[in-house]
Amino acid sequence: MASSEIDALTQALARLPGLGPRSARRAVLHLMKKRETALTPLLRALEAVSTTLSTCSTCGNVDTRDPCAICADPRRDGAMLCVVEEVADLWALDRSRLFPGRFHVLGGRLSALEGVRPEDLAIDTLIRRLEEGGVDEVVLAMNATLEGQTTAHYLADRIGRLPVRLTQLAHGLPVGGELDYLDEGTLAQALRARRPVAS
Amino acid sequence: MASSEIDALTQALARLPGLGPRSARRAVLHLMKKRETALTPLLRALEAVSTTLSTCSTCGNVDTRDPCAICADPRRDGAMLCVVEEVADLWALDRSRLFPGRFHVLGGRLSALEGVRPEDLAIDTLIRRLEEGGVDEVVLAMNATLEGQTTAHYLADRIGRLPVRLTQLAHGLPVGGELDYLDEGTLAQALRARRPVAS
Repeated sequence: MASSEIDALTQALARLPGLGPRSARRAVLHLMKKRETALTPLLRALEAVSTTLSTCSTCGNVDTRDPCAICADPRRDGAMLCVVEEVADLWALDRSRLFPGRFHVLGGRLSALEGVRPEDLAIDTLIRRLEEGGVDEVVLAMNATLEGQTTAHYLADRIGRLPVRLTQLAHGLPVGGELDYLDEGTLAQALRARRPVAS
Repeated sequence: MASSEIDALTQALARLPGLGPRSARRAVLHLMKKRETALTPLLRALEAVSTTLSTCSTCGNVDTRDPCAICADPRRDGAMLCVVEEVADLWALDRSRLFPGRFHVLGGRLSALEGVRPEDLAIDTLIRRLEEGGVDEVVLAMNATLEGQTTAHYLADRIGRLPVRLTQLAHGLPVGGELDYLDEGTLAQALRARRPVAS
């Protein structure tokens, strides 16, 4: 039907989360019809991100600079550190604009099933960040899933020995909920009602 | 939150049909995490399409060559011509691999509401293609909408003067359709076009 170039584009788009083969075809048709207003801007945006993309060596955020915009922002409160599982969680929390501090991305969660152990996550770098001093409060913002809470317990155990106040998101989170899917109101509630971790 | 490059990419993706702001953010995160397997292939595919994209001057299909792959294919039956409203319709019909002939894309449908007149569609070029000879049958494959059928009536009037056989897609029950769930218009069409049962 279509040329191999168009097929390749359809397949590349179909692999994005949220797009299947049918919606990828619709997207390709849209791009081809709206060459100046859709295809070219998307191409330029991808090029810009592709050439500048990097992972923040401090917090693990993905951004087009290192350190990332959040770590480099002097208006951020360096005394508060929010620990999240994934970059998507960081973005979700940051969109709510309620957390004035900085972040730390673990890169996953402890999981016996998937064989994810503490050394597979950015936990040692987190401990080092805390040992360097300057952080007064660590907010654990794991997903309200079994594995997320297991990770939070493990972190509480490790961080509990350090001289920082340890809090976690209030359990206004619905059981089984994932940060990236929650509305900002729920996130705001959970952040505002964060509590000290009982040791 | 994110840099302006990432924002621009998110916005460019969010404008695709089938993607909204949330799914665009997920797609961007996916692209940034899977740089080698997702971002780079998508970028290359877009570049390839962007540099070679053209509209077929014969049939109106969008492809990376002119004439398009269908018009240039010698195995296609040039005596059969299927007229469709949009390129998306051409692709949908061609995927079924049931039509052995070539296509003609009108680029829309007659619409009093949207002010689309016959001269806004590729009707004159269709008539010229037919007058050049070689086409025995024209299949009108407009959508089964009011505007699609208005367009089909108009085309039937114009083409009726030429020495070609004029047919249109059958209207009736869709495969898998249940009477109880079908609209009265479809049922009326199916009843009116009822055929003798082959014994």
